[in-house]
Amino acid sequence: MALDSDSLLEDSREEDLSTSSSGYPQSTGRVTTTDRPTRMMKEMNYSTSSWRMSQNVQPLSLWVTLTCQISAGSFILQRRGSQGGPWSVQRTISFINWMVTAKVWVLKKHFEGFSKTSDFDLKKIELPKLKDGELLLESVFLSVDPYMRAYSRRDMKEGDIMIGTKVARIIESKNPAFTVGAFVVANHGWRTHFISNGQDLHLLPPSWPESLPRSLALGTVGMSALTAYFGLLEVCKMKPGETVLVNAAAGAVGSVVAQLAKIGGCKVVGCAGSDDKVAYLKKLGFDEAFNYKTVTSLDEALRKASPDGYYCFFDNVGGEFASIAINQMKKYGRIAICGAVSLYNDTVPQKGPYIQVPMIFKELHMEGFMVSRWNNRWEEGVKALLKWVVEGKLKYHEQVMEGFENMPMAFIGMLKRENLGKAVVKV
Amino acid sequence: MALDSDSLLEDSREEDLSTSSSGYPQSTGRVTTTDRPTRMMKEMNYSTSSWRMSQNVQPLSLWVTLTCQISAGSFILQRRGSQGGPWSVQRTISFINWMVTAKVWVLKKHFEGFSKTSDFDLKKIELPKLKDGELLLESVFLSVDPYMRAYSRRDMKEGDIMIGTKVARIIESKNPAFTVGAFVVANHGWRTHFISNGQDLHLLPPSWPESLPRSLALGTVGMSALTAYFGLLEVCKMKPGETVLVNAAAGAVGSVVAQLAKIGGCKVVGCAGSDDKVAYLKKLGFDEAFNYKTVTSLDEALRKASPDGYYCFFDNVGGEFASIAINQMKKYGRIAICGAVSLYNDTVPQKGPYIQVPMIFKELHMEGFMVSRWNNRWEEGVKALLKWVVEGKLKYHEQVMEGFENMPMAFIGMLKRENLGKAVVKV
Repeated sequence: MALDSDSLLEDSREEDLSTSSSGYPQSTGRVTTTDRPTRMMKEMNYSTSSWRMSQNVQPLSLWVTLTCQISAGSFILQRRGSQGGPWSVQRTISFINWMVTAKVWVLKKHFEGFSKTSDFDLKKIELPKLKDGELLLESVFLSVDPYMRAYSRRDMKEGDIMIGTKVARIIESKNPAFTVGAFVVANHGWRTHFISNGQDLHLLPPSWPESLPRSLALGTVGMSALTAYFGLLEVCKMKPGETVLVNAAAGAVGSVVAQLAKIGGCKVVGCAGSDDKVAYLKKLGFDEAFNYKTVTSLDEALRKASPDGYYCFFDNVGGEFASIAINQMKKYGRIAICGAVSLYNDTVPQKGPYIQVPMIFKELHMEGFMVSRWNNRWEEGVKALLKWVVEGKLKYHEQVMEGFENMPMAFIGMLKRENLGKAVVKV
Repeated sequence: MALDSDSLLEDSREEDLSTSSSGYPQSTGRVTTTDRPTRMMKEMNYSTSSWRMSQNVQPLSLWVTLTCQISAGSFILQRRGSQGGPWSVQRTISFINWMVTAKVWVLKKHFEGFSKTSDFDLKKIELPKLKDGELLLESVFLSVDPYMRAYSRRDMKEGDIMIGTKVARIIESKNPAFTVGAFVVANHGWRTHFISNGQDLHLLPPSWPESLPRSLALGTVGMSALTAYFGLLEVCKMKPGETVLVNAAAGAVGSVVAQLAKIGGCKVVGCAGSDDKVAYLKKLGFDEAFNYKTVTSLDEALRKASPDGYYCFFDNVGGEFASIAINQMKKYGRIAICGAVSLYNDTVPQKGPYIQVPMIFKELHMEGFMVSRWNNRWEEGVKALLKWVVEGKLKYHEQVMEGFENMPMAFIGMLKRENLGKAVVKV
């Protein structure tokens, strides 16, 4: 009894990223791993009332492995065949009914300009006992995304728990539709533990390979990639042979946009804010990529990258970049506004030239969107993304920070665009 | 032999508009007429090589009326039954082959700020003899529209003939598909006469009632109204029960937008720049209408007019108005950018707040468009509009200035938004 089977699995992954001076890893070629500053698991964590033990017990036959897990008051006996595949729960025995304490991050003070660690507060909440139909979940990976900065002002008041999604494990279930031990994607914000009635959960697909980090369910096989998927298909309505422009292209969404556009037969132009990121873009298969911070003229750089202009523009940045790019759209071009990271930290709203004249002259279609619009097609999207990842057509890169207590730091770093690929926090 | 049958017809129309101090008529209730400062026709105009004579000759029977018309070198014998209906040509006899001189207005100097009469030059052009397949046309009504101001900078060089559409009569035809005497809608710019190969002409529908001014083929049964029609149907995708906002609502497009939205079962909010115009909007059936120049706060006025916000915004103005209105759109709202009259006269581009954040939050769809996109559905649109006009469901108002020499003045007045409804010039 010692290591969580997941962490054993993760330890065996390819490790090929060196650490840059900024503390963030630099890509050195292969991009199919998570970063793991420390490999040691916190195996027993009473403060969060959750710990697991697992080991290979004597197989009942050549084909069966049993695992005994103790989690939030239950013994869970699981089995699976020696060929791998999902664990199936044999027995769940509740042996204790202690209170579960969740750690949560709350918004102490609305952000003014760039978010600061002092804007957050770490608190503890005692969770009540489960009622019938409810589940107790334990966060495994939490996502930090630019939208949180934007939506905090609109949707939250000071003292509220920070919004966000996570991959979580079901550790107690009074809902027959959900099995203890299963992994789900959930909202519920920055919490180590939470209770759900099951209605707002997305189960990870049964075909999820053991070799794939479950954190990807937040990024390249999750919300970020679904944003790229539906944005390209339903908003940009990209067609083979078209040229697609994407900014913040080394980010969680942008890097998937580019790869999906390539899969869809498009030419892809992207830009990012450092030479390292640009090198990463080129490895991902971008036809043209440049560092927007070092070009003499963004207008010229865009023109040079695609002298015929752009059919599709997947905008993650907004502001001045968008004002320049709009003039290089082709007639009937489509602009999918996914994010506006250049504007989220404004204390005084920035201004730019009005867009109506180029919108009319080129008969452009511009649409803001949130991925939640296609919640009813989540399964379709995840299935497609997972297939491309497994086939190696869709590469991923994650920036994993360890420790729930580091959520604000990970969030702030992501807003400063220090990350390459998807930024997540491992609890 | 004396009066053109059209002018006879026009003389018999309802006249119910008094003239305001600005020289533009004020609406006094009924709005189904053109303005006619003088009723006298220029019956013979040698300088433009076009004159007509017509009279009722002895009917051959009780049921037939003959008209003899002389136009640009041809006798045209036409007949129609005493029950009315379209004239049919019995005989066309070419008797002379003189050169036709067209008057044209050219752009002398690119507009800087507001257009001035000194930016235009009136010239004469000798037209060549027709080749096989060609037609000679004589302008009857010319349109002046805001887009001309915007497109002149992009599409024209100094010395070019001003762009624009008109209703014209075919006065000579070497194209078997077109009959002398027929009326068409044509481009070809600000010219009294022009030659066409017939490919870019829209024939007025055969069902055009004699009682209806043909100038409407430029406005309420023409380009302006088609802009409203396709903008609402294809860009806004309005649905019954939705609230539609339209600005420049007393203009050629705006006034039709509102009426079509009402026909489509929507609630309509509009604004214009004078109390007279607002009174006109209320007569047209707007649910809410206000003078944007006199309200204390546009934001408040919009909120008061529709506390629940707007599903559709048909934008003819752009700029600051659009920046305020965007914040009152409903989730999934649609913004059809038809014009940007507040920006066309800029010497230095105006700036406003970037729109990406509200675009994302409300998942708005914004689309610039030009009516030419639906040229292949012109007939469908005209048919629908004509039906509504004949049924009295779609009211019209025209601001008719007489004299081709007054084109620049009419254009400048329209840009200053002095007109109510559609501004046209009668040659």
